[in-house]
Amino acid sequence: MSARLVNPPSRAQQIHGFLPKNNLQAWIAWRPDELLMLSGYFPFWGASLLIYFADAEPVLFIPQIEPTDHIPAGLRVQEYPWGDLQCADPYSVLVSAVGNELVKAKIKAEDVGMNPSAARTSLPIQAAEQIPMPEGFAGLLSTLSAKTTPACHAAFADLYLRKTPEEVAAIRLANRVANIGLQAFFGNLQPGISEAEVAAAVESAIYREIGRDGIFHSRGWAMVQSGPNSACAGRFNRSTGRRLEGGDLVLIELATCVNGYWSDLTRTAAVGSPKPAVEEILAIVVNAQQTAIDGICPGISAGDIDALARDKIAAAGLSSYFTHHTGHHVGFRYHDPGFLILPGESSILEPGMVVTIEPGVYVPERGAGARIEDNVLVTESGHEVLSRIEESQFS
Amino acid sequence: MSARLVNPPSRAQQIHGFLPKNNLQAWIAWRPDELLMLSGYFPFWGASLLIYFADAEPVLFIPQIEPTDHIPAGLRVQEYPWGDLQCADPYSVLVSAVGNELVKAKIKAEDVGMNPSAARTSLPIQAAEQIPMPEGFAGLLSTLSAKTTPACHAAFADLYLRKTPEEVAAIRLANRVANIGLQAFFGNLQPGISEAEVAAAVESAIYREIGRDGIFHSRGWAMVQSGPNSACAGRFNRSTGRRLEGGDLVLIELATCVNGYWSDLTRTAAVGSPKPAVEEILAIVVNAQQTAIDGICPGISAGDIDALARDKIAAAGLSSYFTHHTGHHVGFRYHDPGFLILPGESSILEPGMVVTIEPGVYVPERGAGARIEDNVLVTESGHEVLSRIEESQFS
Repeated sequence: MSARLVNPPSRAQQIHGFLPKNNLQAWIAWRPDELLMLSGYFPFWGASLLIYFADAEPVLFIPQIEPTDHIPAGLRVQEYPWGDLQCADPYSVLVSAVGNELVKAKIKAEDVGMNPSAARTSLPIQAAEQIPMPEGFAGLLSTLSAKTTPACHAAFADLYLRKTPEEVAAIRLANRVANIGLQAFFGNLQPGISEAEVAAAVESAIYREIGRDGIFHSRGWAMVQSGPNSACAGRFNRSTGRRLEGGDLVLIELATCVNGYWSDLTRTAAVGSPKPAVEEILAIVVNAQQTAIDGICPGISAGDIDALARDKIAAAGLSSYFTHHTGHHVGFRYHDPGFLILPGESSILEPGMVVTIEPGVYVPERGAGARIEDNVLVTESGHEVLSRIEESQFS
Repeated sequence: MSARLVNPPSRAQQIHGFLPKNNLQAWIAWRPDELLMLSGYFPFWGASLLIYFADAEPVLFIPQIEPTDHIPAGLRVQEYPWGDLQCADPYSVLVSAVGNELVKAKIKAEDVGMNPSAARTSLPIQAAEQIPMPEGFAGLLSTLSAKTTPACHAAFADLYLRKTPEEVAAIRLANRVANIGLQAFFGNLQPGISEAEVAAAVESAIYREIGRDGIFHSRGWAMVQSGPNSACAGRFNRSTGRRLEGGDLVLIELATCVNGYWSDLTRTAAVGSPKPAVEEILAIVVNAQQTAIDGICPGISAGDIDALARDKIAAAGLSSYFTHHTGHHVGFRYHDPGFLILPGESSILEPGMVVTIEPGVYVPERGAGARIEDNVLVTESGHEVLSRIEESQFS
């Protein structure tokens, strides 16, 4: 199914609109999700840096030990000596090289924007560590950029909202892989298996996809909560050693990153036959989630979508058990920046946006909780659920 | 086997030495590895904050949606409204509450230390995202702390170097779990399986340990490189879809986090019978690594340990193929702060330090690379390899 977007702006068009509107000659990016969004390049180490010029081709600085086989065409690439035993301070070398490029282009610091904080960035391919740029690096970099104000960052974050058809295809692929993980989830739901064992099978199924369909990076973070533990799933998601029992609800929260693009899904299923008071929770959530999805179209507000889900849960008398937002943007990160889908939010859904729809109800007194989460593209005419894959597509 | 440390300083003793020596009345910690090191508490969300006072019990601030079952005794716990739909700015609430605690204790900002940067912190239990503290939070916090100088942070980082017996036991457990992953590695080495499939099996085996032996968090990051890909392992470690072939060397880099404590291991093994020129690489590395380990004892310099490994590789005529350091501190992070084991480093090994020993040789012309990495505790009388587990200990 195509994304059905009519003449959507390309990523380059969006960026070339953003820069002059904010009086910028260039943007310096080093956060992995910014690199991905601006150039399609997803860093391995998280120590790469891009200068995106208003009037010239971008320049990408990579550590000399970075793999180079997934760097997109159209980027001028320069190495710097990160990982070289002989070089005690590669960051100074990098900052000097970046400064030289700006001088060559006759661009002054007051015309350059950047987000100096590592907070909330996507993990790079090497996902066992936070971004390696050391304390002090942001300070060094800030000498090159004057536009580090919250207003400027908010304008930049706006670029995340409208995905291009190519980006939608990449998010669809992430969801396709995530569904392979979900098959492992449903296939393992039986009394006696532990939450952690189910989650491990899901993550394993996702990792194994590397090498297929152009996938060079595929990693899942699966968190499974069963029985009474599912009642905590509105506060946190983690797997314990608890073993599944007949009558349990079992909830999986699943973050999946494929080639840098993210899927964020939740499923809840029953083991055997739960008590009616437990089964009711799941039925209410399924109904609330589908109602919200059915309402998604261009022009509707986020608050109105939230109300579609929240009203169904309130009608069942369980509103106090739905404690979180109904959704958020997704794709370049597990949680993209941008408005949330929550009560009273007046921001408007537009074609190209990809949001999660994830109402949940968690009732400790019944020892059960449920959430269903899908990733939904807003199209010109309505919406497309990116995260529900026909069984036949896996064959 | 015990750690054989004679009267090692407790963690509290080390901290209570550090604070007055640096003219500090308190330290504010929010980086996950700092929280773990200071208090034994490992955060779920990465949005917790600790005030460690020189003269009073520590206070821990946690998001209201944080799980509480693994918070150690002896901490006064306060919740703040992170995760509350009604609270638009929980960070301001947190910073006010922290400020109030300092006022109550009559401590001025110039007597408080903190690292405001998220760079290089450990991932919290929720490991699919970077630390969630938003841009601007560090700025808010910095109003509470004046001691954010590099010199002060370097003094703080020194606290990571000498592990207590309890911490050594936790790192030993992480290595025990990592070895369960390595069993899956060796058990899956056969022609036809892909690198990603081997790595997935390793990570799965590690995740499944949750719920056993007091393990509430267990996650591995396995990266497998085979045949010619192993020759890149000195630059980066990642798994591809390449399928193993007879005669390959296969290298696994494995980061493992158990309850917040880290193991960092590498193994290299042959599939079938490699060519002599390939087999030689592995033999040289095994010899170099064991020679360096054998030399570890209190009082020796890091540079001398590096030389033990590097000289063996040089004697084989392959020194230009050993391009990285021989080791680093490990335990509170995948890579702890502190001196590296590399040429010319004069820092001295002391009892309680835990370091990696990981020489490697990567020869593209032979289409093969090898590295062996263990985690080694410096004891009063010599050393103990924490990462080599007898088969019988798994039964």
